[in-house]
Amino acid sequence: MYGYYDMEKIRLKMILASASPRRKELLGHLKIPFLVIAKNIPEQTHFKDPVNFSRHIAELKGEAVFEEIHEDCMVISADTIVCLDTKIYGKPQDEAEAKIFLLELSGKTHSVFTAVSVKIKLGDKMLHHSFVEESKVTFNKISPELMNRYLATKDSLDKAGAYGIQGPSLTFISKVEGDYANVVGFPLSRFVLECEQLLKPFTNGHSWFELF
Amino acid sequence: MYGYYDMEKIRLKMILASASPRRKELLGHLKIPFLVIAKNIPEQTHFKDPVNFSRHIAELKGEAVFEEIHEDCMVISADTIVCLDTKIYGKPQDEAEAKIFLLELSGKTHSVFTAVSVKIKLGDKMLHHSFVEESKVTFNKISPELMNRYLATKDSLDKAGAYGIQGPSLTFISKVEGDYANVVGFPLSRFVLECEQLLKPFTNGHSWFELF
Repeated sequence: MYGYYDMEKIRLKMILASASPRRKELLGHLKIPFLVIAKNIPEQTHFKDPVNFSRHIAELKGEAVFEEIHEDCMVISADTIVCLDTKIYGKPQDEAEAKIFLLELSGKTHSVFTAVSVKIKLGDKMLHHSFVEESKVTFNKISPELMNRYLATKDSLDKAGAYGIQGPSLTFISKVEGDYANVVGFPLSRFVLECEQLLKPFTNGHSWFELF
Repeated sequence: MYGYYDMEKIRLKMILASASPRRKELLGHLKIPFLVIAKNIPEQTHFKDPVNFSRHIAELKGEAVFEEIHEDCMVISADTIVCLDTKIYGKPQDEAEAKIFLLELSGKTHSVFTAVSVKIKLGDKMLHHSFVEESKVTFNKISPELMNRYLATKDSLDKAGAYGIQGPSLTFISKVEGDYANVVGFPLSRFVLECEQLLKPFTNGHSWFELF
């Protein structure tokens, strides 16, 4: 099926379809050159469960970029949500909503879902692949003093669930269970494993890194 | 016992007895002013178990600074080690040793222990407190390609176990169980809880943040 491809000639352009500086930093750890092309997509879906919710938004983000690229490429998009019981938390609209989110998450364990969509164009072939990774995060009970200090950092405003795990929220995060990078916004180590499998047909026993 | 102290008059100088830029960043999230004063201490102890090993080194680091401060202060020191089975991993001496460490940790789950020592001087009273926090970290099997790319970043060299979780090693770290900040080098959320308890006798119902 893939015998047609000669690995020496295949070069995929890696494109990150996300404006998140945290995803850019995480993907950068692979030391593969990539472009960032992000479209503004309304983060809306009819799905109510976290797996399909995040997967659908990630698909929409990727599709918007993929349809505009006319060369061999791999377009990567992602969506991260926070989920407690059946409630899904996206980014808070303002500091008041951030405080409400954090008070609801205080003293409890919630889930973080990141969906990753990978779309590959190679000649006239297209490959679509996606996966969703779940991690759990436990907050201590956030004291009023810590809450005020945290909100003052403005760290909440552009992040699902109103916190970023890589920063000042570590004053009240007691536990992570699962992939840490997934909580930041991109499950990097799983992405590596998925790429290994996904790209195996094209690599002729070489490393998939050589495709880029 | 502590009725003698008038909270309005108590001001503790917070001192971090560690040269680690990661600990400085973590402690900085509290938004309490602090000084960094670090002594070069040989990281040697007769203890063989990870809890006493790390605690002893943290104590030595703290003691060296504490004995030179002659005003009311809280001196914080810490030591982080990586442990697989009964072997304790400190910082690798060079890239060759870093590679040996990483190959041993590859595909397995190890423990990270950080010991924190807190020493308080307040008038003629002294308080010594310490605790050790354990987190578990799981590595995927590190492919030769990923290993080369990781070693090239030089991220290994100044870190226990030859990796820093907050950087490019996320390409092969699949799981954390426990406090993430503890793996970085300082169990910040537990430190907050321990300070709350430790300083309660001095705070008269106020927040312990006000002591600094």
